[in-house]
Amino acid sequence: MPTIRLAEERDRETILRISAGVGVFTAEEVATVDELLQAHLYDPEQQDYEFFVACDDRDRVLGFVCFGPTALTDGTFDLYWIAVDKAAHGGGVGRELLEWTEEHVRAAGGRLLVAETSGTPEYTPTRRFYERLGYDGHLSVPDFYRPGDDLIVYSKHLC
Amino acid sequence: MPTIRLAEERDRETILRISAGVGVFTAEEVATVDELLQAHLYDPEQQDYEFFVACDDRDRVLGFVCFGPTALTDGTFDLYWIAVDKAAHGGGVGRELLEWTEEHVRAAGGRLLVAETSGTPEYTPTRRFYERLGYDGHLSVPDFYRPGDDLIVYSKHLC
Repeated sequence: MPTIRLAEERDRETILRISAGVGVFTAEEVATVDELLQAHLYDPEQQDYEFFVACDDRDRVLGFVCFGPTALTDGTFDLYWIAVDKAAHGGGVGRELLEWTEEHVRAAGGRLLVAETSGTPEYTPTRRFYERLGYDGHLSVPDFYRPGDDLIVYSKHLC
Repeated sequence: MPTIRLAEERDRETILRISAGVGVFTAEEVATVDELLQAHLYDPEQQDYEFFVACDDRDRVLGFVCFGPTALTDGTFDLYWIAVDKAAHGGGVGRELLEWTEEHVRAAGGRLLVAETSGTPEYTPTRRFYERLGYDGHLSVPDFYRPGDDLIVYSKHLC
């Protein structure tokens, strides 16, 4: 059972290594993880992005999650990134991170959590993950990311 | 037939007046229009948001549009805001603005234009507008904006 805590500066390298290592994120996506992580670490004013890490009993980072309130909505939060070290896949870390996020968002007054993902075969495990955890997926924009790569939006009511 | 040109500092007041006057934008949404408009006007580095206005033959602003490239996609653009002065509704200004935007985005290498809107009855004219102009709408997140207010995402291939 992992421990979940706020991401700190010393976690940055591991978070980026995990992001690059899962095998589905592009270099541009890993750079975006880093951009949001730097906002979390170094901009005390911002409230758009929060990062938390899941650690084993020796405080080794096994995975991370990034989420925040969705602009112009009442009580909706975006799950921006969630990833687990490839070596720890299948151990329930992703489920712990997502269920923990749902609790945290609910405690912050959130009522709905939204996650965008891709409709390509390499994202099938990701889509199944959300579906197992009670998320409803909708095909939202065909060919969104690139031709043949659709945007699927998952959401779950937290009440 | 309106003339379409880049939005300038002198248009700011009219753009905000039009936004507040269409009757469907909340105060928070009008403030967001202003935030993006200020990025367009005063931040020469940013390439995320472009504002254009439609003017009559005396250069009076009848409506505006804001759009930009969608992060982490290949050739997709977001239509962030489009609004026409209530006094000019029904005169084809919205259609001119949107068709002009499609041409401009296509010329910039865009292949897909995406617009998010609400599923509530007060947005029925907006949804009909996109549908008449060839956009496909998908129910993407039930209860997204607030309970009972769904996110509908429209998109159109520009090729």
